[in-house]
Amino acid sequence: MKINYLLLLLLSVSLTSYAQKVKKIEPPNWWVGMNHNQVEILVYGHEIATFTPSINNEFIKLKEIKKTDNKNYVFLTVDVSKAPVGLFKIDFKKKGRRNNFSVDYELKEREKDSKLRKGFDSSDAIYLITPDRFANADPSNDIVKGMRETKINRKHDYARHGGDIKGITNHLDYISDMGFTAIWSTPVLENDMKESSYHGYAITDLYQPDPRFGTMEEYIELAAKAKEKGIKMVMDQVANHIGIEHWWMEDLPSKEWINYQEEFLKGNLRVTNHRRTVNQDSYASKKDSDLMNEGWFVDAMPDLNQKNPLVANYLIQNSIWWVETLDLGGIRQDTYPYPDKDFMSNWAGAIMDEYPNFSIVGEEWSLNPLLVGYWQKGQNNKDGYKSNLTSTMDFPMQQNIVDALNEDESWDKGLVKMYEGLANDFSYANPSKIMIFPDNHDMSRIFTQLNEDIVNTKMALGYLLALPRISQIYYGTEILMNDSAKPDDHGLIRTDFPGGWKGDKVNAFTGKGLTKDQIEMQSFMKKVLNYRKNSKAIHSGKTIHFAPDNGVYVLFRLLENEVVTVILNKNEKSIYLDLTRFEEIGLQGKTVKNIISENEFIWSKSLKLNSKGITILTTKL
Amino acid sequence: MKINYLLLLLLSVSLTSYAQKVKKIEPPNWWVGMNHNQVEILVYGHEIATFTPSINNEFIKLKEIKKTDNKNYVFLTVDVSKAPVGLFKIDFKKKGRRNNFSVDYELKEREKDSKLRKGFDSSDAIYLITPDRFANADPSNDIVKGMRETKINRKHDYARHGGDIKGITNHLDYISDMGFTAIWSTPVLENDMKESSYHGYAITDLYQPDPRFGTMEEYIELAAKAKEKGIKMVMDQVANHIGIEHWWMEDLPSKEWINYQEEFLKGNLRVTNHRRTVNQDSYASKKDSDLMNEGWFVDAMPDLNQKNPLVANYLIQNSIWWVETLDLGGIRQDTYPYPDKDFMSNWAGAIMDEYPNFSIVGEEWSLNPLLVGYWQKGQNNKDGYKSNLTSTMDFPMQQNIVDALNEDESWDKGLVKMYEGLANDFSYANPSKIMIFPDNHDMSRIFTQLNEDIVNTKMALGYLLALPRISQIYYGTEILMNDSAKPDDHGLIRTDFPGGWKGDKVNAFTGKGLTKDQIEMQSFMKKVLNYRKNSKAIHSGKTIHFAPDNGVYVLFRLLENEVVTVILNKNEKSIYLDLTRFEEIGLQGKTVKNIISENEFIWSKSLKLNSKGITILTTKL
Repeated sequence: MKINYLLLLLLSVSLTSYAQKVKKIEPPNWWVGMNHNQVEILVYGHEIATFTPSINNEFIKLKEIKKTDNKNYVFLTVDVSKAPVGLFKIDFKKKGRRNNFSVDYELKEREKDSKLRKGFDSSDAIYLITPDRFANADPSNDIVKGMRETKINRKHDYARHGGDIKGITNHLDYISDMGFTAIWSTPVLENDMKESSYHGYAITDLYQPDPRFGTMEEYIELAAKAKEKGIKMVMDQVANHIGIEHWWMEDLPSKEWINYQEEFLKGNLRVTNHRRTVNQDSYASKKDSDLMNEGWFVDAMPDLNQKNPLVANYLIQNSIWWVETLDLGGIRQDTYPYPDKDFMSNWAGAIMDEYPNFSIVGEEWSLNPLLVGYWQKGQNNKDGYKSNLTSTMDFPMQQNIVDALNEDESWDKGLVKMYEGLANDFSYANPSKIMIFPDNHDMSRIFTQLNEDIVNTKMALGYLLALPRISQIYYGTEILMNDSAKPDDHGLIRTDFPGGWKGDKVNAFTGKGLTKDQIEMQSFMKKVLNYRKNSKAIHSGKTIHFAPDNGVYVLFRLLENEVVTVILNKNEKSIYLDLTRFEEIGLQGKTVKNIISENEFIWSKSLKLNSKGITILTTKL
Repeated sequence: MKINYLLLLLLSVSLTSYAQKVKKIEPPNWWVGMNHNQVEILVYGHEIATFTPSINNEFIKLKEIKKTDNKNYVFLTVDVSKAPVGLFKIDFKKKGRRNNFSVDYELKEREKDSKLRKGFDSSDAIYLITPDRFANADPSNDIVKGMRETKINRKHDYARHGGDIKGITNHLDYISDMGFTAIWSTPVLENDMKESSYHGYAITDLYQPDPRFGTMEEYIELAAKAKEKGIKMVMDQVANHIGIEHWWMEDLPSKEWINYQEEFLKGNLRVTNHRRTVNQDSYASKKDSDLMNEGWFVDAMPDLNQKNPLVANYLIQNSIWWVETLDLGGIRQDTYPYPDKDFMSNWAGAIMDEYPNFSIVGEEWSLNPLLVGYWQKGQNNKDGYKSNLTSTMDFPMQQNIVDALNEDESWDKGLVKMYEGLANDFSYANPSKIMIFPDNHDMSRIFTQLNEDIVNTKMALGYLLALPRISQIYYGTEILMNDSAKPDDHGLIRTDFPGGWKGDKVNAFTGKGLTKDQIEMQSFMKKVLNYRKNSKAIHSGKTIHFAPDNGVYVLFRLLENEVVTVILNKNEKSIYLDLTRFEEIGLQGKTVKNIISENEFIWSKSLKLNSKGITILTTKL
């Protein structure tokens, strides 16, 4: 990597003489045939606002020129609704002819049926990956000269470990064979930060992958190869904030580009109060609401001011640009309740307008189903808030599952937490479009949360993979990765996947060196995920569950002639489960098959359950 | 009490010869000018169904005669829409003239403006009383011959203690002086049960007070005297079940009068599973739903089958009958999620149709705001369920208040539980019509829940009395009554109110013998309640609260020129509260007054808080 990565995007536009005046043009291109056909182009260059821009093209109209208080920026609204595919010229003129110059701007052709692309849904099981920690396919990009964090250190939890985009691409077969149908990788865009740049959430260039993760070509290659295998790419995006080393921070595009900008420039930082309920609370003080939405997430992440229409449009275009560029199958939006909520609705609405079958999942980390429900499209909110977010994250149910398994059974503890938690679905606009997960990159690993109890871990995973939900599994869950040595330690949670690095003694891709427990869990998950992949009953069947009784909780998924039965049994000693209680399901006399052991039996009056654990059965009626 | 109480109601109708054939006529009377003007009269008597009933009256029409499989019952639907006030005759004929007989039925005149009666609302503070344990004004009714439980024993937690209706009547001045504006007494209808008859929830006659509590005249007198003092009477009613000694149980009116009737008659009892989420849960099995709604609450309480239209109408008429008879200011409905939910909506709807300004509060004992919210009128439920219940009970917020005060402060513990709990109001159809309480007759006393911390108890009480809610306080809370010796013991929770019994050494009505702590709490509550009584800002003002910060949580109530400020401070040592944070309230430079100490000061930049506790301030802008 000898070339200056900061100049990479300039390669995609061709500049004529004096073009060195233009340092950035964003978005670097657009497409013809988009709903969003009034592209607002940010042009950044020394005193660029003192030039008069024009477009001399019968099909393309420069509709508006927006200037800010910073002469180095100009925003051009270009109507490309009638434009053909190809390059067009934007001319910049100024008194004294020798100053004049032009830049070329490209309008690309869209992929066929780009508009109709399908997002992820409840037929999907998404594999969540922290790319720095998954597989290092290209050690040559581990250290990139000129970037602020220049070391890698696999022994340091918060340092870069060298994993990359190519590492994911190389292991698509493993992911697909396991039964996953989608990948969500935490952000791989440039994070040219001094430290902890591996996690990806402090983006310093919204149009470039981080060269330590790979090139734009490699990023596109990952997307293309994944698609070939039927795996959707879900991109992790961040509208709330940027990294403090973002190039904007050297020369802010305007007043009020970031929140608390004036105070920041005076050296004062205003950090958010994280009181997320202000978004819903009709009693919240203005003081608290402002600080929640405008305060910075952390010191190192300037908070974007989405109330500024230029910022808002920049973010919307950036998201759409990546959908087209990477042929995405979904977006995951970070810290959803932190930006201006009207902006978030407009942002999601603009994307869904462009791609009506697409999916966007937003992160509201709350255990309160009222808050989670508020953000989902179709929710009839009393305050009139109309969300355009298709999917939310089921943090409440995640906690219920953990509690259900960790607690001893009693009237209001244990399995009833799952049962009553799932009952809350009555309140959601669209429960099957909510994402469920045993853990994620910010939480203690499920195996740790369940005190390293393998049987309980299988119960949690088997159950959640059968729910009417989009499911998401963090990489390494299948081999019992854990942070038990120091629970909640982010470095530990994001441990390297064994086999991802040359010389790893253990290789989870091949199975080499895995323990018996790891092999068994990997095999269990592979079976469940591959069953799930083709189970219409799980994808979109009716759900019927029976209140936990004597330590056993039973859930059914039914569609047409398929019935999936999930039995969670907490009894250590063998018991007989009375099957007559489930008469309304209609399984009497039918042959049912255990999807793990593949044993078959006839559903009659009772079923012997030998020990604590999960039993997943399938029946064709 | 020498007369047979079971015959009391017969005195209100006059029977001609052979009238001994009729043992019960219910409702015992009706009124003219009701919306419900097709009264369905239950007539019970030996082979009464073999007679032909008729009404020979130009203004009154016998519209329908309903018979069941039990010949001893007949149900007469009488159209009284054009009837005058007074008696009319119902003739019963049969072959053989000497069998014929008539009964008189009375149509009464309604109280003026009965229809427009106002129910309780957020201007009310309701005093909840367990009458057996409040005051024994008439020892002559302590033991009533012929009833199944014949002893009183003040030393036994679950025995009768002798308190009565007259005991409440005699202490209305105390209740009113304390600042309460309504009384909810747990049921005083006949509970002729073998044991634990004191609590009142196993009703054996739905048209008679229990003679050990008093006569019908005394009951009416209580209601009338309370009304004179501006105190609303809230009646505790039970639509779900009756006591197993109810007279119906000797000779059930029809098949399917009670749930699981056939099984009961065979000697099998089916008790509810108490899985209340089935009412909302779209995944609930039919098996669980049926058992929840049709199973008996406990063995001794037969579960009424409200799907039987005769039962349904009986219950609706019974409720309306008591509203008219006692001139009620509200109804509290027990175990709201247990009966058939469509019936409950019809029941509440029929009452609200009769009294459009009335209030009904239903008990859904759940910590889940989603379930509590579901039952309130106006909630836009996804399943289309339309409730007619005006008020629900805020069990979630009760728990939040207790947790907030018991927990040490941290990011997600302590006062934030109150703050975030109250934020859930965004989801309720009508939060100010929800009832909040520190405890009730089924819960450990607040003083016990708060580990006998007086400062915390004041914080809980002062805060909840300032919320946009109907407030309810259990008798004795004002003198720190507790069940700390054996938490949750129902007998202890329902301890005798000192001074209610002749010879009591301590008398909380007069203050004699109270400890310093008790006197201080009684005085604190009296001040807060009496301020609340006239505070429009508390009754219906805007609410603004500020997220807890450094152990201090501040809530404001504002209406027109009145501002009430509630400061909850958990710091043991003195601190200065920065008042500039609350600038948006507009108190700068105003004189504020502490409603407890009556001290005044000018609201400026900071306020010294000397120690942990609650500060309630009032300002006239």
